[in-house]
Amino acid sequence: MTAEAKRTSRERLIEAAAALSYREGVNVGVEALCKAAGVSKRSMYQLFESKDELLAASLEGQAASYTAQLLPDMNDDRPPRERILHVFGQLESHSTLPEFRGCAYLAVQIELKDETHPASRVACRVKGDLTAFFRAEAEQGGASDPDLLARQLTLVFDGASARAGIGAEKLAGLIAPTVSTLLDAAGVR
Amino acid sequence: MTAEAKRTSRERLIEAAAALSYREGVNVGVEALCKAAGVSKRSMYQLFESKDELLAASLEGQAASYTAQLLPDMNDDRPPRERILHVFGQLESHSTLPEFRGCAYLAVQIELKDETHPASRVACRVKGDLTAFFRAEAEQGGASDPDLLARQLTLVFDGASARAGIGAEKLAGLIAPTVSTLLDAAGVR
Repeated sequence: MTAEAKRTSRERLIEAAAALSYREGVNVGVEALCKAAGVSKRSMYQLFESKDELLAASLEGQAASYTAQLLPDMNDDRPPRERILHVFGQLESHSTLPEFRGCAYLAVQIELKDETHPASRVACRVKGDLTAFFRAEAEQGGASDPDLLARQLTLVFDGASARAGIGAEKLAGLIAPTVSTLLDAAGVR
Repeated sequence: MTAEAKRTSRERLIEAAAALSYREGVNVGVEALCKAAGVSKRSMYQLFESKDELLAASLEGQAASYTAQLLPDMNDDRPPRERILHVFGQLESHSTLPEFRGCAYLAVQIELKDETHPASRVACRVKGDLTAFFRAEAEQGGASDPDLLARQLTLVFDGASARAGIGAEKLAGLIAPTVSTLLDAAGVR
């Protein structure tokens, strides 16, 4: 039995939805998703109530690897300033990959234009976790206003991933000085 | 003859494409566009080669009012720092409108995921003009690195409009301090 066949239909649908919606957008059709996953439409609708639910599940399914790729390890004991800069270093590094199209969680929310969509809710929560990480590090690092710094860092994160994702910007020489300036101003040395 | 009837089919199609793609996304159908404009599909295809061309024309058609809404007047003689902050004040003010969905030019590029699409090209050019404005003001204001400051301001502009557009953030108390910090660090007093 091949590794591909061992993965369940549910897993294959979730992976296909993640890959295709990232590459082509949330309007990718059910036919294309089922074809890419090698699953019948009938099976898909037995596993997921709707394409919206499949999309939400695919964002949920990527959340752990998204966080692991961006955040420092649990046992990373560098100071908060370096832990924050680590996230932006990871973003800069990912942004040079040819398949990079920016943050999937931001793109989905911009494309759906509906805060009540199940996929928007998942995306909003996952990005909220990123802001919470910044908030905790900012406080630990003695930021004068940890809430403000966390919001600023998330804003810069989304601006950078959006602009690099559309090919309008390269992050080298841009993201690190920008984040450093905000950290300096907040007193996180 | 009513004002509505006086506007040409071309004008009505361009306005419908601008409004519907902003509200619903670039995948809005040709039927919906023609219905909103009160123009037949046949007429639409006599005026525009494709929906892609109509979308590009709609972004082109909004460019002048987009720039006028954001940038200071030609005869505004405030110092560069204030002229730059004016743009972000306008963004903050627009972001509180219920119909605000972020920057149309950023959204289109994120949604299309294709830098060669005619609408992406228009969007890229219009946003390039915004960066050029920041660049000129930065230089005029004595920024230590005008290119870097212009890229940073565009990044913050896109991050702020994206996050406010998806309803994840309110810009009051966020955008002005962020931009001020970057201006301070660049020496634009």
